[in-house]
Amino acid sequence: MGTTQLESVPEPKYWHLKTVLSEALDSEFSVGEILPNERDLAARFGVARATLRQALEQLELEGRLQRRRGVGTTVAPPRVGVDVGTEQPDWPGSADDAWQPVDAVRSVPPAAVAAALETGAGDPVHIVRRSRTSHGRLVATELLYVPDPSVPDLTAIDAPSGPARARAVLRELQRRELDGQDRAVELGSARADDAKDLGRLPGSPVLVVTTRFFAGGRTAALSVATYRADTCRLTFGDSPGVEIHPGPERRAS
Amino acid sequence: MGTTQLESVPEPKYWHLKTVLSEALDSEFSVGEILPNERDLAARFGVARATLRQALEQLELEGRLQRRRGVGTTVAPPRVGVDVGTEQPDWPGSADDAWQPVDAVRSVPPAAVAAALETGAGDPVHIVRRSRTSHGRLVATELLYVPDPSVPDLTAIDAPSGPARARAVLRELQRRELDGQDRAVELGSARADDAKDLGRLPGSPVLVVTTRFFAGGRTAALSVATYRADTCRLTFGDSPGVEIHPGPERRAS
Repeated sequence: MGTTQLESVPEPKYWHLKTVLSEALDSEFSVGEILPNERDLAARFGVARATLRQALEQLELEGRLQRRRGVGTTVAPPRVGVDVGTEQPDWPGSADDAWQPVDAVRSVPPAAVAAALETGAGDPVHIVRRSRTSHGRLVATELLYVPDPSVPDLTAIDAPSGPARARAVLRELQRRELDGQDRAVELGSARADDAKDLGRLPGSPVLVVTTRFFAGGRTAALSVATYRADTCRLTFGDSPGVEIHPGPERRAS
Repeated sequence: MGTTQLESVPEPKYWHLKTVLSEALDSEFSVGEILPNERDLAARFGVARATLRQALEQLELEGRLQRRRGVGTTVAPPRVGVDVGTEQPDWPGSADDAWQPVDAVRSVPPAAVAAALETGAGDPVHIVRRSRTSHGRLVATELLYVPDPSVPDLTAIDAPSGPARARAVLRELQRRELDGQDRAVELGSARADDAKDLGRLPGSPVLVVTTRFFAGGRTAALSVATYRADTCRLTFGDSPGVEIHPGPERRAS
């Protein structure tokens, strides 16, 4: 992979098949329809079963197909647009926040998070876990890192565990004045625990949205949200419902 | 893949190795350093060569490693933050636009694009190709779809081919009043032509940013930009330079 002589690298066979299959899905199948079995598909497209399976796996990874036990392989619905709006900076947990608090713990964050929050390398911070559903399905999990100086009065509160504790951290955070925020989106691969929560296999591609919340001249909180990449399209701006589902030629054009 | 019994699915061996390797990269290696050969690495971690290769491929896909002919496998620099700001809606090709025009053709767009632009299924539109570099490297390619009604005076212009023609389309577009825009980010896989331009293999994961530009009560133009997912982090908001490079635990947490 990834040599400097890309001109000489032919398109892998399964990838060409994927494109052909994707076009067939668009023109011949409707959402929820069950695909013919692998033997019939391999025969129809004149490929080996192994090649077919690679193409099907790629299409599943891209959210075009769903494989369900006892049902078979079905055509997946279009990706759901999930609003990640940036217009009005707002603390996590504000009135129209789409996230549900799950729990909160005090633990040492990863080194990169500690550096962003300017805490000491071994210092514990509050880690609030939240989840987000769309159309009744879990689409994202979040870890929100909040250092002690951002919630100075929290220790005085008799915070229980679970969602109540998460809400207590968010409530304290919201008492501070928010100066602004920024966001970054990048590709990640699901960790075992996130994968399980999201109903994906470990290593599945995910979209990772990192948000920094600024207050008092520093990063007062940092959120790392992991979205399913197969079913989600992250939307920004005035019209959250971008209803464009890329076809085979649009998908990466 | 993707059964309903995820609890019973163990973490694949290569994926565990990937995590271990990623930690080793953080703690023992610096950017640009050449990794030991596969035989030595496999021996050190007590895994089969095939498992090691899968883990290395995954790390390359995620932009942690680079493989170069005649050099070997090296530790990749952190992902580059590429600003995809949304604050001020602006036409493509405006003064501080980071994109370079490549050429423009008239061609029939994919069905999903035609639907968004409300053109007839077989109607050609102007397709402007642009590219974007960051730190001297090509990081993204764009196809900008512009229907005739959005550039009514264009046919009167003696537009040559290549970048000049692309600039002519953009100039005409900028004469219209822009009502607003929205954006969506999703996972895609590189088509053969984009892959070649971006120095990736076909099917490599890419981040696809779709932007709709609204004018006169309709979608006046639609941009589909394809960013390398291994080296790019898309940034939104006030501070383009989010300098957080996720470590092994952060990457998808």
